[in-house]
Parts: sequence; C-alpha cells; structure tokens
Amino acid sequence: MGAIRTDLAMESFEEHGKERLPGVEISSWEAEGVHVTEVKVSQGEGARLLGKAPGSYLTLELEDQARRAPESRRAMATLLGEELARLVPPGESDPVLVLGLGNRWVTPDALGPRTVERTLVTRHILREMPQAADERMGLVCAVAPGVLGVTGVETQEMVKGLISQLRPRCVIAVDALAARATDRMGYTIQLTDTGIQPGSGVGNHRSALTQETLGVKVLALGVPTVVYAATVARDALELLARNSGLEQGHEKALDALGDQIAGGELGEMIVTPREIDQLIEDVSAMLASGINQALHPGLSQSEIDTMM
Amino acid sequence: MGAIRTDLAMESFEEHGKERLPGVEISSWEAEGVHVTEVKVSQGEGARLLGKAPGSYLTLELEDQARRAPESRRAMATLLGEELARLVPPGESDPVLVLGLGNRWVTPDALGPRTVERTLVTRHILREMPQAADERMGLVCAVAPGVLGVTGVETQEMVKGLISQLRPRCVIAVDALAARATDRMGYTIQLTDTGIQPGSGVGNHRSALTQETLGVKVLALGVPTVVYAATVARDALELLARNSGLEQGHEKALDALGDQIAGGELGEMIVTPREIDQLIEDVSAMLASGINQALHPGLSQSEIDTMM
Amino acid sequence: MGAIRTDLAMESFEEHGKERLPGVEISSWEAEGVHVTEVKVSQGEGARLLGKAPGSYLTLELEDQARRAPESRRAMATLLGEELARLVPPGESDPVLVLGLGNRWVTPDALGPRTVERTLVTRHILREMPQAADERMGLVCAVAPGVLGVTGVETQEMVKGLISQLRPRCVIAVDALAARATDRMGYTIQLTDTGIQPGSGVGNHRSALTQETLGVKVLALGVPTVVYAATVARDALELLARNSGLEQGHEKALDALGDQIAGGELGEMIVTPREIDQLIEDVSAMLASGINQALHPGLSQSEIDTMM
Amino acid sequence: MGAIRTDLAMESFEEHGKERLPGVEISSWEAEGVHVTEVKVSQGEGARLLGKAPGSYLTLELEDQARRAPESRRAMATLLGEELARLVPPGESDPVLVLGLGNRWVTPDALGPRTVERTLVTRHILREMPQAADERMGLVCAVAPGVLGVTGVETQEMVKGLISQLRPRCVIAVDALAARATDRMGYTIQLTDTGIQPGSGVGNHRSALTQETLGVKVLALGVPTVVYAATVARDALELLARNSGLEQGHEKALDALGDQIAGGELGEMIVTPREIDQLIEDVSAMLASGINQALHPGLSQSEIDTMM
Repeated sequence: MGAIRTDLAMESFEEHGKERLPGVEISSWEAEGVHVTEVKVSQGEGARLLGKAPGSYLTLELEDQARRAPESRRAMATLLGEELARLVPPGESDPVLVLGLGNRWVTPDALGPRTVERTLVTRHILREMPQAADERMGLVCAVAPGVLGVTGVETQEMVKGLISQLRPRCVIAVDALAARATDRMGYTIQLTDTGIQPGSGVGNHRSALTQETLGVKVLALGVPTVVYAATVARDALELLARNSGLEQGHEKALDALGDQIAGGELGEMIVTPREIDQLIEDVSAMLASGINQALHPGLSQSEIDTMM
Repeated sequence: MGAIRTDLAMESFEEHGKERLPGVEISSWEAEGVHVTEVKVSQGEGARLLGKAPGSYLTLELEDQARRAPESRRAMATLLGEELARLVPPGESDPVLVLGLGNRWVTPDALGPRTVERTLVTRHILREMPQAADERMGLVCAVAPGVLGVTGVETQEMVKGLISQLRPRCVIAVDALAARATDRMGYTIQLTDTGIQPGSGVGNHRSALTQETLGVKVLALGVPTVVYAATVARDALELLARNSGLEQGHEKALDALGDQIAGGELGEMIVTPREIDQLIEDVSAMLASGINQALHPGLSQSEIDTMM
Repeated sequence: MGAIRTDLAMESFEEHGKERLPGVEISSWEAEGVHVTEVKVSQGEGARLLGKAPGSYLTLELEDQARRAPESRRAMATLLGEELARLVPPGESDPVLVLGLGNRWVTPDALGPRTVERTLVTRHILREMPQAADERMGLVCAVAPGVLGVTGVETQEMVKGLISQLRPRCVIAVDALAARATDRMGYTIQLTDTGIQPGSGVGNHRSALTQETLGVKVLALGVPTVVYAATVARDALELLARNSGLEQGHEKALDALGDQIAGGELGEMIVTPREIDQLIEDVSAMLASGINQALHPGLSQSEIDTMM
Repeated sequence: MGAIRTDLAMESFEEHGKERLPGVEISSWEAEGVHVTEVKVSQGEGARLLGKAPGSYLTLELEDQARRAPESRRAMATLLGEELARLVPPGESDPVLVLGLGNRWVTPDALGPRTVERTLVTRHILREMPQAADERMGLVCAVAPGVLGVTGVETQEMVKGLISQLRPRCVIAVDALAARATDRMGYTIQLTDTGIQPGSGVGNHRSALTQETLGVKVLALGVPTVVYAATVARDALELLARNSGLEQGHEKALDALGDQIAGGELGEMIVTPREIDQLIEDVSAMLASGINQALHPGLSQSEIDTMM
C-alpha cells in the first residue's frame, strides 16, 4: 500500500519489513528502563527508500508499563540530556539557540513553544553580569518563532535573521511529530542531527532548517503528538486485507482505497488522545528538562527551578 | 457490524439504512441556508433500535459551501435561538439554568464550559436591581459544574444541589458530542428535549440529567467535536468489505476485527480537526449567541455585548 | 485616619498599635524558617474593634531572605499541612469539601480556582472502587463555584446545594485576600476557623460562608494577592503627616483627604506585583500542596503527582 | 517633586503646568466623540524638559461617559486607523511589520502580543498566491518577539534580524504603557513617529527601536495598562502638600519622601484595574481593528473576520 505518513525514521524502517536496506544501520539497547534505537542512514539508496535525509536518528521509547510513573519521565529526560550533550558542539562564547517550532494556539502543535517556555535561558544574564558566569551554566537562548499562517514570516527567514544576530554554535529545533502507531504518542522521543526537513511536523508546512540552509549545526528533537486519521484508516484496511487473504492480487485496489480515504475529508483530520492538553504539558516538561540538563550540566534541578 | 458510537439521533437513524422504524418519524426542511431534520422517537421498538430515549431530536446542519462565512454561523445561531425559544417554558419569576458540561481543560470537551462563559447571566442583576428588569431580558443563570474526575462530585449531584437552591423552570445542558461522520464536526447542532443520557458526550462518563432524575424539563444542546478513532477504522473496514464483496458471509469476522480495533489502544483515541482549539471557540460563540437570543428575546447583539 | 482595608487579622491588630485589646490574645513562634502568629479573638469589644469575627487566625509568614528558594515554599506548605490537619475534624465516611472561591478569569482573584485544580480529589475513586481505599488517602472533593457576576448564582447558594448533596464533615474555603502591606503579597498565609465573612476577599462581593450559614465547620485559607491602591495612597499621606508633624490637629483633614482618594477612581484600583500571573501559579501550588498533605497524610508527593 | 514616571508625552507636558515650552507645540480637537491631542516636539530645550524624543505624539482619549458602549471603542479604532494610515508610507512590494512588544505571560504587559494575534497577516498569502492580491489588501506580517528575560535575545537584535530578512517599509511597534493618571488606563491611545525609546513600556527593559537603530521608519502605538504604585503614593503626597500649604519651603523633604517610597518595595509594584485581563482583551481588539483598517483599507470588518 502507499506510503504511510510518519516523521519517525524508526517507523519508516519498520515499514520496510525491517529488512536490510543498503546504507542503513540499526542498533538498539536498553538504558534505565528506556528502549533506545539508533538508525544510521548514509547517502544513497537506503535514504531514498526510507524517505529520510542521511544522518543519525536516535529513538527513545518508554515501555508501556513504565508510563504512569513520574520517575520514568525523569529517566527519559536524563537519558535525553546525555544524548543531547554528546551532539551539541562544545563552546563557551557562542550560544546554543533552542527553537520551539509550531503554533502555540493549536494544542497538538504547541509542543515546541511550550518546551522553550521551560528552557532555562542565560545569554542575557551572562552578558549583563559576566561575573555570574560559571562553568556549570551554558550560554542559551530560546525562541518560539511562530508559524507562517500567523506571522506571515517563514520559519526559515525568522531563524536566518536570528542566526545573523546571535551567531549560535548550534540550533536545537523542537517540534511535534506525526507517528504511524497511536501508542507512540507522547512516549517516544526522536533526536536527529539532520535538522528539520520540509514537510515534517504536525503543522506540516515548514521549510528546511538544516546545516545547508542555515550554515550551522541543527539538531532536531521531536515527540509524536498525533497520528493522521488516514493512517488509522489505512491500517484498518491492511489488517482486514491480511486477515482475509485479500492482499494477494489486490494491492492496487487497496492502494486506490487508501488514497481515496487520505484525499477525502479525513486527510485533514488527526488522531490524538482525548487528554492531548495534559500530554503536551507533560512531554514539554520532559523535553525541557533534558535540554536544561544537557546545556547547563552543572546545575541541579532545584537550582534550575529557582532561576526560572 | 457492531454498533458505531454516535450521539446524534440522525446518524443512528441513517445507520439503520433510513428504513422505516416503528415509532420513529422523520421530517426535514431548509431555513436560511441551514438544513434542519427532526427525528421524533416514541416509546417502543424504534427507540430501542436507535438506542435513543423517546423525544424530539432536532438537527441543524450548515451546508459545506456556507461554512467559512461568518454570516452562516450567525444564521445558525438565529435559527437555534428560534427553536430553543419554542422549547423553553415561558415564565418570569423562575430562572433558566444553562449548564456547560465537560472539562474546560480538555480542549475537545470544553464546548459546554466555553459556551456558558459567553451566556448573558442576569439573575443577580434582576434580584439586586428589580427596577432594571424589563420584559426584553430573561432570568438566566449559567454554571459549568466541572467533571467527576476533577471535582469528585457527580454532575447529577451538583445539578440537584443547584436546582434545590435556584428552582429553575428549565435546564439547558450544553455538551460536546461524538459523531460518526468527521465532516459533521463543528457544523451540526443537535437540540433535544430528552435531556442528557448516561454515557453520552465526549467525556463519556456522565450520569443522566433528565426530567425524571431532576424533576425539571431538561433540554440538551450539543455539537460534535470528535469522532472516535475506532469509528474511522471501522468505516474503513466497511468500505473495503463493501468494495470487495467480502461482506457476504464474513459479517462475523468483520465484527470481530472491529471489536479488536475498538478494544485496543485506539479505543481511547479521538479524531479531531487539527484546529480543534479554534473550532471550540467558534462553535461556543455560535451556541451562546443562540441561547442569548432565545432567553433575552428583546436585546440586540450590541446590547448583549455591552452587558457582558 | 479612617480604617485601612485588610483581610488579615494580624494587620488589623497591628493597626491598633499592637496595644492590648480586650478579648484578643496574641502568640507567635518560629517553625522551619517560617514566622507564625496566632490571633485569638473572643466575642466582644476586641472583635468589634478589629472588625473580625471571633475565632482563631493563624498567620504564616515567609521571611524576606527565604522567599526565592523553592525549599521555603515547601517548608510553608508542610507547615500549612500540619496546622490544617489539626483543624480538620477526623472522619472517614464524610468527605472534606475544598472550595476555590474567586473568578478564574481575573488573575489576582484566581487563587482559589487554581488551588482546587491542584487538589487531589478522591471521592469518586473511593466510591467506585472502595477496595482502593486505604487509610493513607482521605475522602476529598473540590469545587470552584465561580462568582455571582459570571454565574448569576450566589456562592452561598451554590455551596448550600453542594452540602445538601455531599454532606461534608468540613469545608475548606480558599480565597485571594487583600492586605495592607505590599510586601505581604504572596508570602503570607492566613488560616482561620471563622469561615468566610461577607465583603472579604479580592472579589469583595461574597456572602457569608460560615458554620452558622452552612451548618458545617468552615475553615478559610487565604493569601494576599493585592493591596488596594487607596491603601497605598493613605499610607503615603500618613507617612508625610507623621514626618512633618502635621498629624496633630489635622486628623480630620487627613481623614477627608483619605476618603476623597478612596472614593475616587482609585477606589476600584489594585496594587499587585507586575508578575502577578506567576505569583498566582506559585502560591496556588503551595496551598494545594499543604491541603494535599493535610487530607492525604499517608501519600508521598510523588504518589500524589502520579494520581493527578 | 521628582519626575513622575509616564510614557505619555501629553502627561509629561501637563506635568509642566501646561506652560509654554520652547519647541513644543500643542493642538487638540474632537472627532467622533474622541478627544485628540497632538504634541509636536522639536529638537532642543523642550524635548529635554519633557524627557521625550523629538517627533509627533498623537493622543486619542475616550470620554468618560462613552467608555462602556462598544460603539465608542469602534469609533476609537476607526480614528486610529485613519491616523495610522496617514503615517504609514505607501508601497506595495515591501511589507509593513507589526511588532507586539512585551511578555504575553504577564497580563498587564501582554497588550502587544495580544494585538498582533489579532492582526490580519497577508504576506504569505500574497507571496504564495499573487493572483489573490488586490489593491484593497496590504502586505503585512506580524511578530511578537518576546522579552529578553524569556528568550535571552534583545528585542532590538530580534527585530534587526527580521528586518534584514523582510525589508519592511515601516515598523509599527505596539506596547503596553505606564501612565500617571489611573483614569487613562485602557482608554487612551498614544501614536508617535519617534519609535520606541529605551526604558519605556510596562516591561521597562527595552532597547531603542527607532529609525536610527533599525534604518526604517518606526511608529509606536501604545495604551497605558498600568500606573506605578510609587506614582499613586507621590500623587497623594502632592495632594496633601498642596492642601496643607506644606509645599512652600519643603520641596526637598517631599522629594526625599517620594524617593524613599519609589526606592522601597513599592518600586516594583503596579496599579491596575481588577479586571486587567478583560481590559487587555478589549484594548488589543481595538488596536488590532485600527491597524487592520489602516493596512487593509479596502476590506470590510466581516471580510477581515472571515480571513482570520
């Protein structure tokens, strides 16, 4: 059947039957109750088949039974902090720019803006009171650039303008993602060094934010908050087709049906948990905690809380 | 296949193939660009088959092409006001109590609370300044009782307490509904004199608010804001089954598949437009406008705005 | 000069020059870095002079230097929990009803509603799953009844209705208060067993919620979030008068000036910190933490977080 | 007495006893029930005495008795639109950039961000669908750049970056102001061609946004939403001093007292109406309406509503 829409490299890989793809390497491990998968994509055939830019895609997944405990979210945040710290280039005089992509007034798309609101920002402190600087605190600024439909300004334009003024050593772009599997919503983090590719994200209208377009390293950090309704419908079709043996010889008819569903009114619809508002709160707190740990490695959680 | 979950009597009727059901009468007409359908259900077999309490269910639908224009919402509001005015018992000394059901912090469930925030409340004015009373202004109070999981109090308990104090002549309960068809979300109003039945609404955990339980006439006013994800999946199954001729002889297998989907993780998931926040704003403004026109028949929109 | 408006018994007492008043007993102590004062008022002359109902008024104050540390707020919350636990009558079968008074859409008046949103509510759990009951968890429900101008229903009516349904063993009413001293805003808690008196609170339009009117013990818990602008102006007048020796012989002129200020446009104005939104968040979290500790004495903070 | 803090040129002028100042010209007129005052300041002594940059300051004031009627706000918005249209340089190919200054999470400082949310943005439409362009619709983008303490980025840096990307023909900066007189809050608009000066606005921490610093014409549009508490106290002092004849010979003592008040805890406190949340909503709607009328001169209010 036609391609299912997902922003997770791991799901694109799974969709290919987990078969070996040329130039795609997979590894996975457990850490503190979190399942970690790394998909490494090289230039070439594998990248084309997956529909993903070459680079490294790290996926952190919380096990089902661990999801309700606050400790689990904390473990995820700590692990995210460690992985992020590995990817952010070292440096003291140039800031890290955290970007919260998406529309703060559209709940499932508000993950990025909510995360930057919780990021500890220090650039103004360290510039105005350099004596307050100590090695435990990084140089950080954080902006939610808004979305094109609300500002009339492309995210890429906004970020280029910011970069020309701030000269950051690295950009971390936080965004809400679309997944294929509904049970990944809120409990899977993807961290990649490929930046943001056009057409990804819940808002689905972003231009590229990459090393090529911005001239600076771009890490992208995202969590699925929606599944497209058309994906749910297609999955039901596939399930039935498989169960009934219809698949053989009817691929085209199934594809046509899938396209009909995606092209209709369902195309604009999303699937979320009913408690999407709470999920955005919880997940943005988790992401911001990971970011704060990575960028201010010497500060305790209590010190960070006090400074915000 | 197993019953599809919908709160709209009209959709339950359509699901029965629009065949004649004993004790169910249908009529429909157009008014100001709005399509109106009335389903009248008597006690008996028809009520049982539809799964709906006996009474009258009025459905107002905005045509597709009319949806973007603000004039259309105004026409819907005016029509709603007229139908509501017909159902509210006349009276001057006892108030009408408008109830906004649902959880204001869960966006798709916040329709009721947002509507009562926009309802013009007058009981305190008319009691404190009876000289301000004039026949153009009705006696109205409006409460959002919250939900059981947040307050620990059943909506029915809360409302019984209120009724014992306020002695209203009528209750209007506003609630977010679940529909079967995604294109009904936000553009279909159901108004019924049967009150709120257990298990209806997006929150799906309400006890009955009816003439029987409350001792006062209860009108229920709702707009679909979600479709259950399981409904979307089942609809895809049905579509495929019909297209492929699988239906004949496989009803049981299809039912089992449908139940498997509804019983899994999808069971908790909802389908909404991405712009659900904006939809709740627009629809609650429309409902409140209809309510204000019905309960304060002599006031102009500008006078209402000034008093709020 | 004419009476300064304050809801704090301690400030009323201080205004009387801390002189001995008949039937008023003062005691104070330190606990965990918090300054505690108890004003005990008996029926009679002292009560009349203070303008306060007879009863006990406990004031918890955070020292200036301790205010920025999150640990201090936690210490306040713990102390509040202990004092509250002493005042709530024991019982297992009747719930405690926590009331969040005030208007959630008026920031300085939103303290009560925001606090109940953070209160752990259990009545529905213990009723639906009695096997989940254990002695560490109390029977609690929590309601924000809204304000008269928004609902058309008196708070007293709403609460009477609730009490007739819930039969609580005790009511805890949380409200935003007005203080005289601006440096008390956000850092002073008043806990009293006298209930809510007419005309108190920021909203300043509440009818009595007391043992007499409700037939059940009413504890009132409040934190100043505003000072009236007229109070600030009067204080400036007094300061000048004292500094310049004007006071002698000009009391009447000063009173007239003070009344002129309070009666003018300033009468409707309030003084708050610029960061009033953040203050309401921080203080409501502190109050809810104290309430949760008092009512669920066996649950850890982490267990409470998980259950919410 | 020491200078009173106000952002309104008209109040600075009034403070000088409305005497003639060199290089300052005043004119005033009535239009549609609105009182309009223009203060024209030339380079030199008058500018220094007023503490205002040279340029034109237009003040629109709604009369007391007209404030409750929605018609009055509409008249203000229309008048603002006309005056703004006179000041914005004509042009079709370069956009107008509307900036919403201030912190959206600090209610009295949220006027700017709330106004840009209601501004009709068209740049993306006209770029993506040039055929949709018609002469009735201007080229507009609108950004709320956030505040330094939240983003770590100076507003001036953010705006310079934006200007380098967008090349606007004009900037309109919207900001919440501090006034001297409490009765001006919410009902007085100041429009000036001098841009934003350092230290103005409620947030009180902004760097200059002017033709000199940005290289493009900057109009500043503001409404007072706060009065500093120290101002209220000083005004009380002055009133008493004047009434008691203390002024003569005691100027220094009064100044010292005023400074003592402003330097103390009151220095951080603001005076607002209790309903500050509603005031911000109403005023931002009024400002956005004026801006939309000025920048999209051919669109009706209904067309603008439909496009948002």
